[in-house]
Amino acid sequence: MMTNFQHRYDRLRGRVDDHLSRLVNPGMPKALREACRYVVASGGKRLRAVLVLLASEAAGGTARRALPAAAAVEIMHNFTLVHDDIMDHAMARRGAPTVHVKWDLNTALLAGDTLLAIAYNELLNTHYDDMRLLVRLFTQGVHDVCEGQAMDLAFEQRNDVTVTEYFAMIGRKTGRLITTSTQLGAYIGGGSPSVVRSLRDFGAHLGKAFQLQDDLLDVIGDERQFGKAIGGDIVEGKRTYLLLTALARSSGSDRKLLERVMRRKAASARPLSHRGRQSLVRNVRAVYEGLGVLAATRQEIAAQTTRARRALDCVPASPARGMLHWLSLSLVHRAS
Amino acid sequence: MMTNFQHRYDRLRGRVDDHLSRLVNPGMPKALREACRYVVASGGKRLRAVLVLLASEAAGGTARRALPAAAAVEIMHNFTLVHDDIMDHAMARRGAPTVHVKWDLNTALLAGDTLLAIAYNELLNTHYDDMRLLVRLFTQGVHDVCEGQAMDLAFEQRNDVTVTEYFAMIGRKTGRLITTSTQLGAYIGGGSPSVVRSLRDFGAHLGKAFQLQDDLLDVIGDERQFGKAIGGDIVEGKRTYLLLTALARSSGSDRKLLERVMRRKAASARPLSHRGRQSLVRNVRAVYEGLGVLAATRQEIAAQTTRARRALDCVPASPARGMLHWLSLSLVHRAS
Repeated sequence: MMTNFQHRYDRLRGRVDDHLSRLVNPGMPKALREACRYVVASGGKRLRAVLVLLASEAAGGTARRALPAAAAVEIMHNFTLVHDDIMDHAMARRGAPTVHVKWDLNTALLAGDTLLAIAYNELLNTHYDDMRLLVRLFTQGVHDVCEGQAMDLAFEQRNDVTVTEYFAMIGRKTGRLITTSTQLGAYIGGGSPSVVRSLRDFGAHLGKAFQLQDDLLDVIGDERQFGKAIGGDIVEGKRTYLLLTALARSSGSDRKLLERVMRRKAASARPLSHRGRQSLVRNVRAVYEGLGVLAATRQEIAAQTTRARRALDCVPASPARGMLHWLSLSLVHRAS
Repeated sequence: MMTNFQHRYDRLRGRVDDHLSRLVNPGMPKALREACRYVVASGGKRLRAVLVLLASEAAGGTARRALPAAAAVEIMHNFTLVHDDIMDHAMARRGAPTVHVKWDLNTALLAGDTLLAIAYNELLNTHYDDMRLLVRLFTQGVHDVCEGQAMDLAFEQRNDVTVTEYFAMIGRKTGRLITTSTQLGAYIGGGSPSVVRSLRDFGAHLGKAFQLQDDLLDVIGDERQFGKAIGGDIVEGKRTYLLLTALARSSGSDRKLLERVMRRKAASARPLSHRGRQSLVRNVRAVYEGLGVLAATRQEIAAQTTRARRALDCVPASPARGMLHWLSLSLVHRAS
C-alpha cells in the first residue's frame, strides 16, 4: 500500500519536473538563464507542487488543471531559497553549491527576482475564472514568506525569543507556502468554501509538523540522507523549537551551554574546528535529550499531524485525500 | 501654459505619494517595515505612476481608476532600484543613502522582495474585468527589467558591445517599465486596441529618449540638481550610448582613453582621487565633444521624442494627451 502511494507521488513529481524544465526562456541572457535552470532543475521533493495537484483532486478537480499553479508555487519556493541562501551565507543546498557560490551575489539576486516573475507568469496560465483570487493568494504567500524570513533574521539578534514567536515565524516562513499550495489547489479543483477551508487547515498543521521535523532532523538526522551537515542549526545559533524549548526548561550548566549556542549568530560566529563542532553538537544534543526536548518535539509533531488528519476528515473521501493523509505521515517519518 | 502642465503634474504626483504612503503594512517586522517605508517615501519624479494615470485619461478613462496600478508600477520600480543598487554597489540615490548602506544587504534584499509583493497586491485592487491581462503585462515588466539588468551586468565584462545591443538592453532595463506604464493605463482607461498600441509606442520612444538623456546628464548635468556626482558612468566604465558611439568613431589617443574607461568595471576599478576623477571625466567629455558624440546624442533624443509625438497623434485629442506631449518634451529638457 505504502509503495503504491510512493509510486503515485513519484509520478506526480515527475510531471512537475517535466513541466518545470520548460519554463526558463532560452532567449534570456546566458548567466541568468543558466542560473535559473540550475535552480529549477535542482530537484528536491517538489512537496508544494504535489500538494497543489493533490488538493485540486481532493477538491473534486484534476491534477492536470492545477499543474501551472503547482509549477508556480514550486518556482516561487525556489526564489525564496535562492535569496535566503544569500542572507544565510549558505554554501550548499541539497548537496550542491548555492547559486551565489557557483556564480556570484549579483547573479543569485537577479535569478531569484527572475524566478518570481516566471512563477507569476506560469500561474497566469491556469484555466480559472477568478484570476484575481489566485494571484491574491499567491502574492500573500510571497509577502508572508518575506515577513517570516525578516522575523527569522531579527530573532538571530535576540536572546528572548519565545516558542509562541517561533510558531508565528515558521507559520509565515514555512507554513504559508504550504497553505498557499493546498488553498490554490482547492480553489482550482472547484472545492466548496468548507473544503477550501479544510485543505487550508490541513496545510497549516502539515507546515508546522514539517518544520518541526526539519528542526529535529538537524539534530538526529543522517548526514548523507539529510543533504547537509548535521547540527547546522546549532552551529549557527538558529532559534529552533528545540533550542527555545530547551532554554525554557534549563538551568545551571545546561543553560550556560545553550546560551553559548544562542550567541553563535550566523554572521559573527567564530568558525569551529571539525572536532569542536562535533563536540558542541554532541553536547547540545545530550542536553536536549536530558531535558526531554526531543520527546517533546516528537509529541508536538504527532499533535500537529493529528490535527492535519482531522482537517482532512472534513474533505470528501477520495484517492487524493488518502494520498494527502499518507503524505502527512511520510513527511514526519522522513529522514531527509 | 507650461506652468499649468507643471502644476497638474505636481498634483498627480501628490496623489501618487498620498496613495503610496498607505501601502506598507504597519504590522510588518520593524527593520523590514522601516526599510520599505524609507524606499516608498524617498520621492522621485513618480514618472511611471503619472504615465499610468495620464494614459488612462488619454484612453478615455479616469486617473482615479488607474491609481492602484500607478502605485503598483511605482513600487515595482522601487523594487528594481533597491536590488540594482546592491548589484551596482551604489552608495546613494537621490542624495540619500541606499537601503543596503543605511541598513544592510539582507534587509535591502528582503525589502526589495517585499516591495514586489506589495506592488502585486496593489495592482489587484484595480477595478478591471480582465485581471489576467493586467498581471501578465505587469509580470512581463518585472521579467524584462531583470533581463535588462542582467544584460547590463554582462556588458561590464565585454569590450565589444554595440549600439544595437545597448538599445536592446535599455529597451528592457528602462524602456519596458515605461511601456508597461502607458499600456496598463491605456487598458484600464478602456482604450481601443489602436489607442493601446499608440500609447505603448509612445512609451517605447519616450523610454529611449529618457535613458539617452540620463546618459547625457551624467556627462553634462549639474551635480546638485542631478542628485549624484557627475561622471559616475565614466568612472564605473558603464557602456552608455555616449561611450559606445564614441568608441565606434575614435582612433589614436582618443581610443586609448576610451578603452581605459571600458576597463574600469564597477567591481574592480581602482578608486580615483578627487583630482584624478575630475581629470578623467573632463578628458572623456572633451573626447565626446571632439567626436560629435554629445551632438549625436542630442539628435537621437530629438528623433525619439519626435517619434513619441507621432505615436500620440494617433490618440484622440484630450487634455491628458496634451500633458503626455508636454511631459515628453520636459523630460528631455530636464536637468535632473
